[in-house]
Amino acid sequence: MDNQHRRVVSIYFGTRFRAPKDNPTWCPNWKELSSVSEIYKRRIERVRQRMEELEYDALLLSHGGDLPWLTGYRAMPLERLTLLIISAKSDEAMLIVPALEAPRIARHDDEFTVVSWDDSENPLDIALGILQTTGRRKMAISGRAWAETLLGLQRDLPEAYFAPASLVTAALRSVKDDLEVECLRSAANAADRVAHDIRTGVIPMVGRTEVDVAREIGERLIAEGHQRATFTIVGGGPNSASPHHESGERVIGPGEVVVCDFGGEFNLPDEGYGYCSDITRTFSMGEPTSEVSDCYEVLHEAQTAGCNAAREGTRAEDVDAITRSIIADEGYGEFFIHRTGHGIGIDEHEEPYIVGGNPTPLVVGNAFSIEPGIYIPGRFGMRLEDIVVVTAQGPEQLNVADHSIGIVDI
Amino acid sequence: MDNQHRRVVSIYFGTRFRAPKDNPTWCPNWKELSSVSEIYKRRIERVRQRMEELEYDALLLSHGGDLPWLTGYRAMPLERLTLLIISAKSDEAMLIVPALEAPRIARHDDEFTVVSWDDSENPLDIALGILQTTGRRKMAISGRAWAETLLGLQRDLPEAYFAPASLVTAALRSVKDDLEVECLRSAANAADRVAHDIRTGVIPMVGRTEVDVAREIGERLIAEGHQRATFTIVGGGPNSASPHHESGERVIGPGEVVVCDFGGEFNLPDEGYGYCSDITRTFSMGEPTSEVSDCYEVLHEAQTAGCNAAREGTRAEDVDAITRSIIADEGYGEFFIHRTGHGIGIDEHEEPYIVGGNPTPLVVGNAFSIEPGIYIPGRFGMRLEDIVVVTAQGPEQLNVADHSIGIVDI
Repeated sequence: MDNQHRRVVSIYFGTRFRAPKDNPTWCPNWKELSSVSEIYKRRIERVRQRMEELEYDALLLSHGGDLPWLTGYRAMPLERLTLLIISAKSDEAMLIVPALEAPRIARHDDEFTVVSWDDSENPLDIALGILQTTGRRKMAISGRAWAETLLGLQRDLPEAYFAPASLVTAALRSVKDDLEVECLRSAANAADRVAHDIRTGVIPMVGRTEVDVAREIGERLIAEGHQRATFTIVGGGPNSASPHHESGERVIGPGEVVVCDFGGEFNLPDEGYGYCSDITRTFSMGEPTSEVSDCYEVLHEAQTAGCNAAREGTRAEDVDAITRSIIADEGYGEFFIHRTGHGIGIDEHEEPYIVGGNPTPLVVGNAFSIEPGIYIPGRFGMRLEDIVVVTAQGPEQLNVADHSIGIVDI
Repeated sequence: MDNQHRRVVSIYFGTRFRAPKDNPTWCPNWKELSSVSEIYKRRIERVRQRMEELEYDALLLSHGGDLPWLTGYRAMPLERLTLLIISAKSDEAMLIVPALEAPRIARHDDEFTVVSWDDSENPLDIALGILQTTGRRKMAISGRAWAETLLGLQRDLPEAYFAPASLVTAALRSVKDDLEVECLRSAANAADRVAHDIRTGVIPMVGRTEVDVAREIGERLIAEGHQRATFTIVGGGPNSASPHHESGERVIGPGEVVVCDFGGEFNLPDEGYGYCSDITRTFSMGEPTSEVSDCYEVLHEAQTAGCNAAREGTRAEDVDAITRSIIADEGYGEFFIHRTGHGIGIDEHEEPYIVGGNPTPLVVGNAFSIEPGIYIPGRFGMRLEDIVVVTAQGPEQLNVADHSIGIVDI
């Protein structure tokens, strides 16, 4: 994050908000707000409106991005239950939290009431009590909540109807405000710098194992401002043809194609959560063969077309189709074995999904990856991925790292 | 992992298994087995027996430790569904996996049949088809599977009964065989070395922020052989009284008490998953006050008593009570605000839980933490944690790092 951006975000997340003079359109969604607490309150208000429209009595949030998006607080990925209960009817939101984690959340307690439980209690009993006041006929629960939490609630409420919380929240969360885009941009810029270091040999590859390179990429993500390196895929030679390859002990050799796909979490200032980066670049250890070059040209063209198609009103499935058809027309269709992209935000993968069968029209504020790949089993693979935001002026690629195949000196 | 251990594990996980001559009792559970694949097959067999006893038609495994324990394969923590379906009646196990992740699992395909799905398909349709052959009246699903997966299955199978998979698997998984204990020991030894580095000032603390120290601890865990640093809690001064404190920008000062709780995942050789470490030590920046010393003496005594109580036949709740009573008798009872411990293995927290209300008697092979703490809000806190294994000869503490309060030179 450069200093100017840090200043802007600090103002936004300080106690008094004001739009910076040099950019009057900055953060239009929230320009009347005075504090970070107000942001969360306003989001909860919008969620509550939507619950009323869809006739949900209560929203139950545990693991996943909905909870931090609405409160700034992220549940620990452990078995002790954290659960925010929002009622459609009452203004009060209740956060059920393990007693030993309650000290972590003191500063957010004006957006919700904290109810802590200790290890001798059953937190579901507390939830049932709260749900008695909210109504508990029709409820939505975090898609990433643990199944055992849902099973416990269903055991005690056999007549209740449960649906995934994304039915309530995804349409709101998938439209990023300017601050969220700023944070995604900072994350993308940091990832770009790491991609640049790979291309220029600052992070060497030939002669090293995939895991060793992956470890260094993860460290560099953190050095560039991420709080957490979420994943680092380094697939060399035939492993480049495995899209989600688990980096292993194979040593990268000269002449090989190497796919590097990595990302992390870039925190909002003073918040315990942030927004994700996710970038893929393909490298050649020395000059690529003409087969690899030709294939990459097709991939690059497809990815560029996909990014250009990412415009307000275009259906998600059409962006996928445009990208896919270029690859198919050149005869590589069977080797592009995954969707074109996924939404990104607090969660690494979220809505909108850029996939066949998703007719949702894109809207301004959507942020997602465009990442076609071509994978020839046993030989080589390649992928090119950027994060793109739909703006009123057209698509904006947040990743600006060189898009050509990275020819690494050997 | 020292070389001798690496050799033993390699033999175990090589294509031909034989017990090493110098330790004839090594790995008694599996001594007749010939290969890694055989280990997983035998585990699946035991699970299937238990499903029959409990009358489950099918076991559905996604996120969490059950899947790698039974197959060596771990589902990626993403939204594309990975699901192993085990039938009580048929010998075949089916692994539903995203097409782009299928290349990751080629080597395990003799333990189960891989059914891959691409992004234009709905993997739940595939699951429903398989469940038609297994029976789908009564099913158990991973407790950590995502709620949205369970909701999808329930929508299509409204008459089915679902329970958490732990009802089937936990009693088996909580009894570690000798290889699993070896892996936990290697993880504990690595964590011990990092704890030693903190105590001796190799990882300095005074004058640094909590996050900076936490980052270095995470790097050291990896340098000592972990594949992943799962968490690093560094709480200084008043933050030491927050048991799950999120390390922040606070600078650690002289005279302060600092709680460091950290752990990671230590992979089995050639496997994409491993076993966890988890250790807590409390440090004083310079000589502690007599109040801190006195308090620590109580904590140390309680933790020692808890470890000594970890014997075959003792109930989990009694281990908790013994530990807790020592702290309560000295007047600190209200400041010990969590259970005494949790089981540990492939998952950082798993059964058995050492908590009031858990009457399960301990058995040989159980592995868990003993980690009492005393937290005086706004002032200071402390915790002391080891991983302990129940053996036929009594409790074995895997962590051997100095148990006294770590007085760091300032």
